Amino acid sequence: MNLVLLLPEDLVAPDRARLMGRRLAHVREVHRAAVGKDLAVGLLGGAMGRGRVVHLDAEVLELELSLDQPPPPKLPLTLVVALPRPKVLNRVVAAAASLGAARLVLLNAWKVEKAYWASPRLSPESLRQQLVLGLEQAKDTVLPELRLARLFRPFVEDELPGLLAGGTGLLAHPGSGEGAPAVLAAPITLAIGPEGGWVEAEVQSLLRAGLQPLDLGPRILRTETALAALVGRLF
Amino acid sequence: MNLVLLLPEDLVAPDRARLMGRRLAHVREVHRAAVGKDLAVGLLGGAMGRGRVVHLDAEVLELELSLDQPPPPKLPLTLVVALPRPKVLNRVVAAAASLGAARLVLLNAWKVEKAYWASPRLSPESLRQQLVLGLEQAKDTVLPELRLARLFRPFVEDELPGLLAGGTGLLAHPGSGEGAPAVLAAPITLAIGPEGGWVEAEVQSLLRAGLQPLDLGPRILRTETALAALVGRLF
Repeated sequence: MNLVLLLPEDLVAPDRARLMGRRLAHVREVHRAAVGKDLAVGLLGGAMGRGRVVHLDAEVLELELSLDQPPPPKLPLTLVVALPRPKVLNRVVAAAASLGAARLVLLNAWKVEKAYWASPRLSPESLRQQLVLGLEQAKDTVLPELRLARLFRPFVEDELPGLLAGGTGLLAHPGSGEGAPAVLAAPITLAIGPEGGWVEAEVQSLLRAGLQPLDLGPRILRTETALAALVGRLF
Repeated sequence: MNLVLLLPEDLVAPDRARLMGRRLAHVREVHRAAVGKDLAVGLLGGAMGRGRVVHLDAEVLELELSLDQPPPPKLPLTLVVALPRPKVLNRVVAAAASLGAARLVLLNAWKVEKAYWASPRLSPESLRQQLVLGLEQAKDTVLPELRLARLFRPFVEDELPGLLAGGTGLLAHPGSGEGAPAVLAAPITLAIGPEGGWVEAEVQSLLRAGLQPLDLGPRILRTETALAALVGRLF
């Protein structure tokens, strides 16, 4: 937690916040904060700055806020990721948030097991928690937009072309032999397949929707590793 | 496991391997292999190709091998990573292997807690297992060289300059404001700090050893995310 992310309900006055629970424990045990010390803080969806510890005990942390900096700009990036298995999902969601993607779409695919869609990790509370962890890591306050697209075809045929309008769409696709285009018009949409890859019919649908294939080389990377490597390459 | 990585002791004949344990379970449960099917296989440190399942039961898997492809080339990259906390270590080691780094150095730093060096995850067996998982993920057979540098100063002063000779050394350093150099001579050495960052004396030592600062932007990324993003940017 490189930034203490404050929710509207944490504010007890416009310049004062009161924290309990996970963030209190983290600030006490990891930051080893004390009264008079400053912490990096930000208001969810708003400004960032410093919070001076004015009270701290086992029950509550009180901060006096001075929020005068904007959050870092989002990348003009929509990530379209085939829903990973639950064990991997949290890391992918937090990584997408910390890397600064403006939007994350979790998409169904042939090789996504149906059971993944029933995971409790897909609850709004759980997903939001992972996004918050990613923002706290990266020092950002703005949640990416998160969409669950449980049906492949309606999303790819009806919505994806609109997302691509005026920008560049890329399909991470091992073996395609294609490098990144020389000119990348923003916004960029980047689709990353499931662990077993896209099936051929899905590849064809995604290409028809306007994505261009992008070969990452001979190595098959885990979803969250591929995602970070692609963001590093494209931005 | 996108590649079944065979060890010399798995070979019962030059073109035949016999597997039990973890890899057998994975091939049965995830790949759902059957007699007559082909699996992607590779010999540790050697060639890759196909293994045809000639026998499969709950106890043993037997493969007939046809190994005729070289593994993918390693990146001319040495990663120097401040030893992460044990929970993160496995992911960093596997990610370094899957991304294709030729060498990984785990380095001490002021903000590396001493207890991390006592973790059982630093045993040669545990580290090797994570490297193998990374190779199996990426479809590679060649282990990166792995070094534990328990003392910062002797490594940075006496060994690092030699690693840099003729190549480019980069120090991931938030806030330095420096982009990647326009020309990157290989080999590249890339140093990534601990969660709390390098202390100023460490930064100065690393710069004196020949590293150039590289700013990743305002976002603070987790070690394994930063590592993948940097590899994506530089290669």
